[in-house]
Amino acid sequence: MANFIHRRQLTIEWGHCDPAGIVFNPRFFEYFDWSSWLLFEAALGMNKREITRKFGIVGFPLVSAGAKFLAPLRYGDVAEIASEITEFKRSSFAVRHTLSKSGKVSVEGDETRVWAGADPQDPAKLKPIAIPAEVIERFQV
Amino acid sequence: MANFIHRRQLTIEWGHCDPAGIVFNPRFFEYFDWSSWLLFEAALGMNKREITRKFGIVGFPLVSAGAKFLAPLRYGDVAEIASEITEFKRSSFAVRHTLSKSGKVSVEGDETRVWAGADPQDPAKLKPIAIPAEVIERFQV
Amino acid sequence: MANFIHRRQLTIEWGHCDPAGIVFNPRFFEYFDWSSWLLFEAALGMNKREITRKFGIVGFPLVSAGAKFLAPLRYGDVAEIASEITEFKRSSFAVRHTLSKSGKVSVEGDETRVWAGADPQDPAKLKPIAIPAEVIERFQV
Amino acid sequence: MANFIHRRQLTIEWGHCDPAGIVFNPRFFEYFDWSSWLLFEAALGMNKREITRKFGIVGFPLVSAGAKFLAPLRYGDVAEIASEITEFKRSSFAVRHTLSKSGKVSVEGDETRVWAGADPQDPAKLKPIAIPAEVIERFQV
Repeated sequence: MANFIHRRQLTIEWGHCDPAGIVFNPRFFEYFDWSSWLLFEAALGMNKREITRKFGIVGFPLVSAGAKFLAPLRYGDVAEIASEITEFKRSSFAVRHTLSKSGKVSVEGDETRVWAGADPQDPAKLKPIAIPAEVIERFQV
Repeated sequence: MANFIHRRQLTIEWGHCDPAGIVFNPRFFEYFDWSSWLLFEAALGMNKREITRKFGIVGFPLVSAGAKFLAPLRYGDVAEIASEITEFKRSSFAVRHTLSKSGKVSVEGDETRVWAGADPQDPAKLKPIAIPAEVIERFQV
Repeated sequence: MANFIHRRQLTIEWGHCDPAGIVFNPRFFEYFDWSSWLLFEAALGMNKREITRKFGIVGFPLVSAGAKFLAPLRYGDVAEIASEITEFKRSSFAVRHTLSKSGKVSVEGDETRVWAGADPQDPAKLKPIAIPAEVIERFQV
Repeated sequence: MANFIHRRQLTIEWGHCDPAGIVFNPRFFEYFDWSSWLLFEAALGMNKREITRKFGIVGFPLVSAGAKFLAPLRYGDVAEIASEITEFKRSSFAVRHTLSKSGKVSVEGDETRVWAGADPQDPAKLKPIAIPAEVIERFQV
């Protein structure tokens, strides 16, 4: 069995780049955030609203994020982002995002996220929830 | 009588600039948005939370925004933003933001905003509210 | 004859939205900026690098920008942006961007841009250049 | 001897927050980027332009970045960022940024950056340079 991988193409926009002509690093974390939801939507075959409703979560907030910048990306570059779950724990999971250009890796990003619902004691707070087996299964192909 | 004017200094950040080395235009609209609230906070002597609570509004959403770009601003430039209300109508108002560097105008921005509360018929919707005289008075000095 | 219109679909991202759940207005000016280049690339059948090289320009910097916000766009909304040149002058032009959702207009944006090359007297400065007839022709269909 | 620490206050802006009402994570990496330069400017008593000129570098590009999100920050919160160099190697260094609110840590960020000049073989490329002792000294107080 292998991990479900979601791939998408991304064109580097002018406004994503800094005066050095390369992508300003916080933009990569925007790309990661978008891609994590796209990964779940693709794996579960539902959009975000359907996912949160069906599984009783409010989302999967970030616990940590990190990236290694191996080669710069420039305005107009067409990059591929490949996203996959690298680990499922009880109520958290790790996502790996790999940006590459012409087959060469530019950036590796890692996120740890929590599967979270509203806390029944205080709906303004979040509470980790065990990730359902039927969710985890969809990421094994 | 004159208009109340709120002035603040702003240092142009690296990540605000594009590969041409000048501020990427959408960033100016971020500056305007921040400065409109700072203008109200300064004129009314209250923070945003206090303003919305005291006057029963949810905020003052944008109806329109525009800017003229007269001279570029670059990384490290220290600019001044002067913000003032140029017109009060019944439930809307116009804000003018002027960015200048060393006394020379770089960007002129104009926003039209609505003084808005929750619609009693449907709290998910907004409804224009007449701007209280005591608010308007605070902008005349 | 009609104007060449470039249309593209855009999904509203989480990070584009503010705590009111709607697109934070500066993001619209990012969409406009991207769409202006996509419009030229589509009309001329060349990418940005080819356009600047062939016509000896460094780009088409913004002189002014404005937008009317008619209806909010929210996270997950799929909007269409239709972009067209509404006026060509000697060395400047106006672009109109219309965002709509399910056929209803949400935002109208207008940009005025200058067709600009490096100033032969001082290459660090920009100088307006007459827009070639062969460029203008490609926008009439 | 202790590390030189640069502290600044930061007010969380509306446009920094997402529909959950908390800071959208890529914004933290913007804060870090700004604070790394502010740290050097404060420690060396020079601005960026003076630093790059004096030491013959083009900057200190990011090699990696990471953050732990311990407690959310919301619109209007006033946070403190404390930034310090946690390690100097021959031509790279690590920066730690700690955001706290009312004395409680919200976010811990780590960056690894390279002290880099133009490659004499190919000025379009960057080349790591040994960090001068007089730079390192200024961070020990």
